[in-house]
Amino acid sequence: MKGRFVTFEGCEGSGKSTQLRLLCEYLDKNGTPYILTREPGGSSIAEQIRKIILDGKNTEMSDECEALLYAAAREQHLTEVIIPALEKGLLVLCDRYVDSSLAYQGAARGLGAEYIESINMHAMRAYPPDITVFLDIPPAAAFNRKHGADKDDRMEQQGLDFHNRVYGGYLALAEKYPRICRIDCGGTKYETNAKITALLKSRGFI
Amino acid sequence: MKGRFVTFEGCEGSGKSTQLRLLCEYLDKNGTPYILTREPGGSSIAEQIRKIILDGKNTEMSDECEALLYAAAREQHLTEVIIPALEKGLLVLCDRYVDSSLAYQGAARGLGAEYIESINMHAMRAYPPDITVFLDIPPAAAFNRKHGADKDDRMEQQGLDFHNRVYGGYLALAEKYPRICRIDCGGTKYETNAKITALLKSRGFI
Repeated sequence: MKGRFVTFEGCEGSGKSTQLRLLCEYLDKNGTPYILTREPGGSSIAEQIRKIILDGKNTEMSDECEALLYAAAREQHLTEVIIPALEKGLLVLCDRYVDSSLAYQGAARGLGAEYIESINMHAMRAYPPDITVFLDIPPAAAFNRKHGADKDDRMEQQGLDFHNRVYGGYLALAEKYPRICRIDCGGTKYETNAKITALLKSRGFI
Repeated sequence: MKGRFVTFEGCEGSGKSTQLRLLCEYLDKNGTPYILTREPGGSSIAEQIRKIILDGKNTEMSDECEALLYAAAREQHLTEVIIPALEKGLLVLCDRYVDSSLAYQGAARGLGAEYIESINMHAMRAYPPDITVFLDIPPAAAFNRKHGADKDDRMEQQGLDFHNRVYGGYLALAEKYPRICRIDCGGTKYETNAKITALLKSRGFI
């Protein structure tokens, strides 16, 4: 693997999309070769799997089945998109990866870290991110900044309790895995962007 | 769980279908309440997952993605079919279960037992079969009995080497898990049927 694999994680409203946009603008200006992707992005098989997960008619789906389908889509995205890009020597920026399953399904939905880790064993062992950027802002602060939740987003409608469990999950992950770098998002979006570029520069990734 | 969960395993040509038919005829005659099922049987979500696995256009599927999809379909079949039947106190006869993944994908395809066990952790720990009937006949003998492989069956076309690896996988599983009962299938189908009914009677399942 010649490329670098950087994943981005955070709660709803943590500013992930904004930060990825600002980082890409910076990389475009600098001429750094990279790809920006997110699961199931760009893999037909992973899209087919995603469709089953999101189909409103599939109300009977068990939590374990859902977690396994996410893991299956992740493997396929890895095979078809991430690994080929890393082999070309590109910087791969991925919006969410295994840590999202650990925080959302493992911690918040209660399936537990052991279960999520075991079904994602191959991705975690064979293709761990070089760095995971965790955009750290407590859910209450994030919601205040957004002036309340988006009524059309099922995840944002889960309530503060759920998002606090996700956040707690991320904090525990950051304790456990040294690859996870907490970025304090209390300042402006430009301040956060500067912290992220400084981090990636310090590792020699950009 | 008031019911009993019995799975049936074996290589291609081991006579699983025939033995299940003979056992069901026996149970029908005796008035024993049971269901006969096989993955993804009777679960719409599991069928949707199965369709992705079997779709001839999905040639790019990674081995890990395939194994995770089988595990996902298994979980859903468990939730929608097996658990409700066990809760009703029925005898559940299931044609193949986790051991098939361990023998075919773990041993024969080379993904390894640790990986298949970890992605099937929930099914194996929470819903292990009470007994697994392993129809033991070496692949060469099974193929001879069938006068060669079925040209329309992709699995039977894999060649003797592959099926010997599957068989080796089953033998290793039978060593590891006391729930697996080896039934020698060297005799006539009626002799094998008598061994199976004797086994289930000895455990008080029928």
